[in-house]
Amino acid sequence: MRRVRLLVQYDGTDYAGFQVQPGRRTVQQELEECLGRLTGDRVRVTAASRTDAGVHALGQVVAFSTNSPIPAERIPRALNDLLPAAVSCVAAEDCPHGFHPRFDARGKLYTYRILNRPTRSPFICRYAWHIAEPLDLPAMREGARHLVGTHDFAAFCAAGSAVQDTRRTVRRLDLDTEGDVIETHIEGDGFLYMMVRIIMGTLAEVGRGRLEPTQVLSIVAGRDRGKAGPTAPPEGLCLVRVTY
Amino acid sequence: MRRVRLLVQYDGTDYAGFQVQPGRRTVQQELEECLGRLTGDRVRVTAASRTDAGVHALGQVVAFSTNSPIPAERIPRALNDLLPAAVSCVAAEDCPHGFHPRFDARGKLYTYRILNRPTRSPFICRYAWHIAEPLDLPAMREGARHLVGTHDFAAFCAAGSAVQDTRRTVRRLDLDTEGDVIETHIEGDGFLYMMVRIIMGTLAEVGRGRLEPTQVLSIVAGRDRGKAGPTAPPEGLCLVRVTY
Repeated sequence: MRRVRLLVQYDGTDYAGFQVQPGRRTVQQELEECLGRLTGDRVRVTAASRTDAGVHALGQVVAFSTNSPIPAERIPRALNDLLPAAVSCVAAEDCPHGFHPRFDARGKLYTYRILNRPTRSPFICRYAWHIAEPLDLPAMREGARHLVGTHDFAAFCAAGSAVQDTRRTVRRLDLDTEGDVIETHIEGDGFLYMMVRIIMGTLAEVGRGRLEPTQVLSIVAGRDRGKAGPTAPPEGLCLVRVTY
Repeated sequence: MRRVRLLVQYDGTDYAGFQVQPGRRTVQQELEECLGRLTGDRVRVTAASRTDAGVHALGQVVAFSTNSPIPAERIPRALNDLLPAAVSCVAAEDCPHGFHPRFDARGKLYTYRILNRPTRSPFICRYAWHIAEPLDLPAMREGARHLVGTHDFAAFCAAGSAVQDTRRTVRRLDLDTEGDVIETHIEGDGFLYMMVRIIMGTLAEVGRGRLEPTQVLSIVAGRDRGKAGPTAPPEGLCLVRVTY
């Protein structure tokens, strides 16, 4: 058996997330079916991030083991001939047997996009949260500053997570604009369940003037999910890069 | 009765085109159903361009007549609350009773996008034709030059069109690049059935080296659809602007 690592992109709009769920269309299922046809093996893939329904990826990392002798450099085009248009393999390479995309990851970069203008766009809205009312960007940036660093992010973790240690380090949290789109880059060593979307839902409350920027500090300190903002919708979120 | 003109955008990927077809999901049907709910009238809409299945619009112009007193400026947001995410109304205004979006149009601007790189992208490929082999852009530009001006474009008209006069004026045909994407802007007084897509299919043949740029000239002169290139796929095409 050899182990192969893939770089994968997908438009998550029409998927019930990455991870296999019975009776639902998932990215993992598409990859496993197509890799099965390509290699002749019964393939199981593991991903760096089990992205939720509707979340996109530009840089998901996936690994699988196989007996197939197909050269790694031939995998992307051969696999893309089988995959639906919404999923694409952009690179493949052989990797050590023990490589685990999630456990070995040292950091992840996500972007979250907000379309902030009165009318929505059928193109941008697949990949952005549409907020019609004008947001106060300087206030959002001030709120974001309180999240950078190592904190207990329990207030930004959705119920249902089995994680014990809710301390995480956010290395970068920048809000940039491009036209009507506010693009947030958030990078850290790892993220709790729904953490990025709860952070964005909270910053949107700041942008709407419903929360003061300094309240973000007390929300972190309070460790109470009920005090943070709502969970932002999935379409704005994209996994951009995983570092090892 | 008053007449109202709308500016409409849509992602055509999941539609069987603009025009109503029994048993198929079309943009016209979405607009008519939602305008019916909004106005209480049985609404029929007319569009500047009856775009084909999979073709997109950033600037489709649509008109309808109604008895509803709803102020035009309130229509976009009220209509967008009813429309699916793939269709959006970005502007509305009252217009003369006799206004016809198609017959009154004096010009149209389309873009056609080609993603030219080995691997496809799940995001760009919804809105671009993916061609993996490198295209010769200078040759395509030279071929395009032969199409600008007033010509008989019979060679670039799909079978099944009932149009008698196949003379049209192409005012502009520019090929620009943005990263791996070749974006073509094509503007003219009007276009024959499938004309833009047959032009793009022909220029792609030039880009691949299967046709010489000067052969575009003889294809125009020959007036034979069989000599032009294949019809490019719909996903690269977008109606950007209609002028009156």
